[in-house]
Amino acid sequence: MNNYSNKQTMIAHTPEPPYYAVIFTSIRTDVEDDYQATAKRMVELAETIPGYLGQESARNEIGITISYWANKESIRSWKQHAEHQIAQERGKKEWYIAYKTRICLVERDYEQAIH
Amino acid sequence: MNNYSNKQTMIAHTPEPPYYAVIFTSIRTDVEDDYQATAKRMVELAETIPGYLGQESARNEIGITISYWANKESIRSWKQHAEHQIAQERGKKEWYIAYKTRICLVERDYEQAIH
Repeated sequence: MNNYSNKQTMIAHTPEPPYYAVIFTSIRTDVEDDYQATAKRMVELAETIPGYLGQESARNEIGITISYWANKESIRSWKQHAEHQIAQERGKKEWYIAYKTRICLVERDYEQAIH
Repeated sequence: MNNYSNKQTMIAHTPEPPYYAVIFTSIRTDVEDDYQATAKRMVELAETIPGYLGQESARNEIGITISYWANKESIRSWKQHAEHQIAQERGKKEWYIAYKTRICLVERDYEQAIH
């Protein structure tokens, strides 16, 4: 398991609330060109943005990617990052049939490691 | 495609913000006993709770289920629903290795239907 998929397959270790979540729900086209490589690159890039807290991702019929952020300013920095903007444009043109983005204030959380 | 899976494979049609999201991220055991049937039943049951707005779900290495709610009171009603509480207990004992729940205020959203 490489570093990328390892990060994608964990429950994100976020700090005590409040913090922010960006929920990105999407339905993919069948266009594969550069999609996986770009998704991987976007995770690496997001990690360099101050205020990035982690990410969780799963896909079968629909895809859900949630990135966690310290505050709104860090979300804005990420949204406006030049390389991310290019990827967002390609996403609209090539990779997604439809998507919805929700900006959320995480007010409370609780977790359990059981087994 | 049955009614259940159809609902699970759509981007939820939520109203204008603000509203609430409950993000449930989980890692499954390999115990399948009643899991699918209970998951299906929980969606049907959640739909009967006043204030329920919709749900999105995806799983591969990790699972992410997001339910949307009009307010905190509706989330509390759902959490405390007797049949849901039984399912939550079975989840801890049988179905999940670990999970995290995050209660979030959706402040802003935007969507795009492209193709």
